[in-house]
Amino acid sequence: MAVHTATVTVQMAGSTQIENITKSVATAVTNSQLEAGIVTVFVKHTTASVMIIEDEPGIRSDTQAFWDRLIPADPRWRHNTVNPGEDNGHSHLRGQLQGTSVTIPFAAGALLLGTWQQVVLVDFDTRARARELVLQVLGE
Amino acid sequence: MAVHTATVTVQMAGSTQIENITKSVATAVTNSQLEAGIVTVFVKHTTASVMIIEDEPGIRSDTQAFWDRLIPADPRWRHNTVNPGEDNGHSHLRGQLQGTSVTIPFAAGALLLGTWQQVVLVDFDTRARARELVLQVLGE
Amino acid sequence: MAVHTATVTVQMAGSTQIENITKSVATAVTNSQLEAGIVTVFVKHTTASVMIIEDEPGIRSDTQAFWDRLIPADPRWRHNTVNPGEDNGHSHLRGQLQGTSVTIPFAAGALLLGTWQQVVLVDFDTRARARELVLQVLGE
Repeated sequence: MAVHTATVTVQMAGSTQIENITKSVATAVTNSQLEAGIVTVFVKHTTASVMIIEDEPGIRSDTQAFWDRLIPADPRWRHNTVNPGEDNGHSHLRGQLQGTSVTIPFAAGALLLGTWQQVVLVDFDTRARARELVLQVLGE
Repeated sequence: MAVHTATVTVQMAGSTQIENITKSVATAVTNSQLEAGIVTVFVKHTTASVMIIEDEPGIRSDTQAFWDRLIPADPRWRHNTVNPGEDNGHSHLRGQLQGTSVTIPFAAGALLLGTWQQVVLVDFDTRARARELVLQVLGE
Repeated sequence: MAVHTATVTVQMAGSTQIENITKSVATAVTNSQLEAGIVTVFVKHTTASVMIIEDEPGIRSDTQAFWDRLIPADPRWRHNTVNPGEDNGHSHLRGQLQGTSVTIPFAAGALLLGTWQQVVLVDFDTRARARELVLQVLGE
């Protein structure tokens, strides 16, 4: 068994932008030369999340509408009122609920994703940022 | 260290039905003959989730009521309006928020679950389907 | 590759109290003497969760306000009405949505957390309890 660590940086626009990173994850598994195991896709930020979705325009639109309704941007979030200059309290609440990582099994050197499953990065912040991901591959 | 991959298919009814899969997960760990490690329980679908709950009738009922209130079925979800014939936009939003997998540690050949923790599959879709799970066991 | 299992008990007050456990997680990785891999931080209870947040007072306050609004305490939750003496139906719903564990990669013997990422335990229950965590370290 072995561990292979890959890192990927993705330029994101914020405002619940969704970026498909499935190919990067598959490439990390291929490059590891491991046959079977798991890959943990981990974003090193508190206002962005990794998730698995059916990636089509309707779902992307619904995802944005859902988050804008559930946890709206609001200057009254305490994160904004106690930290001068901050406006992303809602981005933090969204990111911590949706989660920082997903873990995906692989076998025969390929991700065991279902037909419609795609791995995406979603950025909840209020401005454009470069986002760092760790793709940690464990297996044999 | 080694990797053992098991797969399980569960017939589900949709409509936030909950099925207890703890025994299948425990069996996968036993069959791996590994002493210590982690098992990732991964559902290969975008409108179903794996979660850990106290599995009693009150919680099952509350879980259904909660999701019906938080993300209701609605023909106006964009997933439904832009994809003719689709009616499960809410199922996708629920599945991606609740998540595709759980990871559980084990030691001395047994899952390290707390007294009240059970592993369940929940199906958010609008019709009955067979659901595939991957139980990926890593350990030594 | 090897597996190291650590356990930590944390005294918690309930009512969405947040406790920073980052140092315990880092110590478990150090004690494992492994160079690279993942650590799964798993809480053995159904009314508490592990999550990754920016741990500052505004976020702590917003997190509590968010949960009190999204899933309020209510004697009418079925968990409370069908199980005499129970008052924590909302705690269960919060715990199962936020999730039981996080998985964090490490390399060069150190957690690959971003600058602002902290690992915290959140307790959604209605009274003080001792909470058990498993820190399962896999790597090489």
